[in-house]
Amino acid sequence: MQPIQVGLLGLGTVGRGTWNVLRRNQEEIRRRAGRGIEIAMVGVRDVARARAFLGEGVRVTDRLQDVVTNPGLDIVVELMGGHEPARSLVMEAIHRDKHVVTANKALLATDGNEIFDAARTMGVMVAFEGAVAGGIPIIKALREGLTGNRIEWIAGIINGTSNFILTRMREQGLPFEAALAQAQALGYAEADPAFDVDGVDAAHKLAILAAIGFGVPIRFEAAHVEGIRHLSAIDIRYAEQLGYRVKLLAITRLVAKGLEMRVHPTLVPSQRLIANVEGAMNAVLVKGDAVGTTMYYGPGAGAEPTASAVVADLVDVTRMHTADPDDRVPHLAFQADSLVARPWLAIGDTVSSYYFRMRVADQPGVLADVARILADHRISIDALFQREPGEGERQADIILLTHEALERDVNDALGKIEHLPTVLAPVIRLRKESLA
Amino acid sequence: MQPIQVGLLGLGTVGRGTWNVLRRNQEEIRRRAGRGIEIAMVGVRDVARARAFLGEGVRVTDRLQDVVTNPGLDIVVELMGGHEPARSLVMEAIHRDKHVVTANKALLATDGNEIFDAARTMGVMVAFEGAVAGGIPIIKALREGLTGNRIEWIAGIINGTSNFILTRMREQGLPFEAALAQAQALGYAEADPAFDVDGVDAAHKLAILAAIGFGVPIRFEAAHVEGIRHLSAIDIRYAEQLGYRVKLLAITRLVAKGLEMRVHPTLVPSQRLIANVEGAMNAVLVKGDAVGTTMYYGPGAGAEPTASAVVADLVDVTRMHTADPDDRVPHLAFQADSLVARPWLAIGDTVSSYYFRMRVADQPGVLADVARILADHRISIDALFQREPGEGERQADIILLTHEALERDVNDALGKIEHLPTVLAPVIRLRKESLA
Repeated sequence: MQPIQVGLLGLGTVGRGTWNVLRRNQEEIRRRAGRGIEIAMVGVRDVARARAFLGEGVRVTDRLQDVVTNPGLDIVVELMGGHEPARSLVMEAIHRDKHVVTANKALLATDGNEIFDAARTMGVMVAFEGAVAGGIPIIKALREGLTGNRIEWIAGIINGTSNFILTRMREQGLPFEAALAQAQALGYAEADPAFDVDGVDAAHKLAILAAIGFGVPIRFEAAHVEGIRHLSAIDIRYAEQLGYRVKLLAITRLVAKGLEMRVHPTLVPSQRLIANVEGAMNAVLVKGDAVGTTMYYGPGAGAEPTASAVVADLVDVTRMHTADPDDRVPHLAFQADSLVARPWLAIGDTVSSYYFRMRVADQPGVLADVARILADHRISIDALFQREPGEGERQADIILLTHEALERDVNDALGKIEHLPTVLAPVIRLRKESLA
Repeated sequence: MQPIQVGLLGLGTVGRGTWNVLRRNQEEIRRRAGRGIEIAMVGVRDVARARAFLGEGVRVTDRLQDVVTNPGLDIVVELMGGHEPARSLVMEAIHRDKHVVTANKALLATDGNEIFDAARTMGVMVAFEGAVAGGIPIIKALREGLTGNRIEWIAGIINGTSNFILTRMREQGLPFEAALAQAQALGYAEADPAFDVDGVDAAHKLAILAAIGFGVPIRFEAAHVEGIRHLSAIDIRYAEQLGYRVKLLAITRLVAKGLEMRVHPTLVPSQRLIANVEGAMNAVLVKGDAVGTTMYYGPGAGAEPTASAVVADLVDVTRMHTADPDDRVPHLAFQADSLVARPWLAIGDTVSSYYFRMRVADQPGVLADVARILADHRISIDALFQREPGEGERQADIILLTHEALERDVNDALGKIEHLPTVLAPVIRLRKESLA
C-alpha cells in the first residue's frame, strides 16, 4: 500500500523533530501502523532554509494555502503554533476533507469547540496529543484509558519552563529573575517568557484537559490564572521547612457547585511523587472514582518528545482514517451530543487550604488579633510558626497554614488583617493542595 | 441503540468491581462510548452467592460454557484467572465470533500467541488492559501512545504485594516473613504468596509488556525470575545508606545481542521517582528513543482499579466491534505479519551493575584478594564501604558497588571469592540499575 500522504505546516523545533522521528523510525512505525507515513509536502515561511534541512524529494512551499488544498494529501500536521494563520489553515484543511494533527494548545484552548464541530460535520479527525504535556500520552490516557471513571480532579505540572525555574529557586535559593535567566540561557525559556511564567500556557492545556475529563465544552476564559513571577525564594524555603514543595499546578476539579479550573503556585506535600517532579519535566495526576489516583510523567516539551506525540496521532489517524466516524474516539472524549455545560466556579467560590506569610511588628497581641480575624471568617489554623526577630529587629514573620477555607472568606480576612497597624506589609498567600 | 451485551465469567474481587463500576458510572460510560454496556449474563461456580450479590434482572449460570456459546452476547469478559477452564472458554468465545476482554496475565503470558492468532483469524478483539498494572493504562500508552518510538527498555514495579512488603521491610526494618505477615493481614498478600513474592506474577506481566514494546511474540519462558523471599533487611538498610532503594523490578531491554527479560530485587537510586513508589502501588518506566523516559503510576491491583481497566477495554471494543479489523490496533502493538523473533539473552549474557555484601574475617589482605579477583574478571569497583567489626568481633561486612559487568563474569568471580578462606559466607549479590 502507498504510504499515507502528509502535509506539514511549520518546520520549527517540533516540525523538525517530527520529520526526524518519522524518518529514523519509519520501519517500526510501518510495522505498527500497517502502512508507511510520508511527509509529501511542507509549508514554511523560509523555503530555502527548509530545503537545506529537508534535502531532496519533498515539495516545499511558502504558500501555506497550497498545502491544505492539495488533494493528494490525507492528513495535515499543523506545527506552526499561535492563532493565525494556524486557525484558518486548520479550518480550511477540515473543509477540504483532510484529517488534522496539531500540537497547538493556544489554538485549541480558544477555538477548539469550533474546530471540533467542523471536523465532526466533515467526518474527519483532529488529533492533538502533542498539545498537552509533550510526549506524555495524557490525552489518550484520559480520553480512552480511564473511560470507566467519573473523573474527580486533574492536577498537573504542565509547564516545564516554570517547573525548571521553581526547581532552581528551591535548589539554589535564587530569586525568580536569576532562575529565569538560567532557564533562558539553557533554552528552557523564551526571550519573552510571559506565556510560560504567567501561567497562560498551563491554562491553555488545562482547559483542554478539563473538557476531556468532565465532558464539557472547552472554556479557557473560565480559568483563574496566576503565574510564578511574584514568588519569593523565602516562601519556597519556608514551605520546604513545613514539608511542602511549591509547584505551578494546573488544577481542575468537579465539586457539588460546578467545576473549578485554576493555575497557580501551590504547596504540595513533599512526600507526594508529583512534588518530586523536577526541572523541565511534566506530570499529570488524575483522580477517578474507580481507579483512584494515577500519574503520568515525562518530558513535557522539546523536539522529539513532542514529535513522539505527533507521530502517535499520525498512526492513530492512519489506522482510522477510512473507518466509520462513529467508531472513532470522540474529540473531547464524550460524544458531541452528550457534552453538558456545567457552571464554572469563580475563584472566590473555590475551597482550598492556604499558606500565609505575614510581616508583623514584634509586640504582644498581634497573633491574637490575626487568629481572631481568621476565626471570624471560618478559617481554622492547621500549623503556625514564627520566625524570631534577629538581634535589634522589631519585625517578625508569622507563617500560617490553614485548613480548607472558602477563597472569598480568605480575601475578606486578609483585607482586615492587612489593616491591622501591627501588620506591616501585604500578606503573602499561596494555596496548598493535599492531592490525596 | 440497545446496549452492547456482555457475558461475565467470574464474580470474584475484580468481577464484582466491574459490575459495580458499570452500574455506578453507566451514564458517564454511555456518554463516552455512545452506547450502553450491559452485563446480561454471568457465569460463576456458586449461583446462589452470585444471585445474592447481583439481584434480579441478570441471567446467572454455573454452566460457564453457556455464556460463551450464548448467541445474544457480543463480548465475553473473562475474570476467573488461571489457565483452565479460562483458556478453553476464551478460545471457545473467540471461535463463536465474540470479542473477549480479560485481565488474565497468567493465561496471556503462556497462551497469548495462540489466543491472539485465533482472534485474528476470526476477526475479533481480545483486550487485556487489566492484565498488567491494574488501573494504569500502560498497555494503551505503550501500544498506542508511543508508536513513534523505538522502545529501548521498560522497567516496572508491577507486583503490588512485593512492593508493599519491601516498603514495610525498609520503613520498619522488618525481616521478610514479618512484612509478609503484615501484607497477609491487610489483604495485600494471598495465603500462598508464592506467585507474588517469587516474581512469577511480575514475569507474566513483563512477558506481555516486552512483546508489545519490541514487536516480538510473547515468550514467558525466556524470563529470568528471582523474587524477594531471600532478601535481608540489612541489605535494604545498606542500600539506603548508599543512596538506593531496593525494588522488585521487572526489566526488559533491547541490546545489540538481543532482548533481556528479567525480574529481580534491584537497587534503584533514591532520587528516581520510581524509587519512591511505595506500598501496593505500581509504576512502569518506558524509555523510547524519541520521547525519552515516561512513567505511568497508579494502583496495580484491587477491585475497582482493575475494573477501571476492564471497562476501558469494554468501551474500546464497543466502539470498534463493527469496524474493519484492519482499522483496529493490533493485539501486540505491531501488525501480526511483522512480528520478528529476536534472540532472548540468557541471564549470564546480560550486563548490569551490582551490589555485593561479603562477610569476611577481620584481617589484613582480605580486600586486596577480593579486589584482585574482581579485576581479573573485568569487574571494576564503583564504591566500597566496610562495616567495622564490633568490640571483640572478628568478622566484618564489606559492601561493594560495581560498575557494569557481565553476569557470567560476576558468577565466576563470586565463585572464586567464596573459596577464599577469609570469606566466611556466601556473597550476597543484588543487581543495580540507574534507569537513566
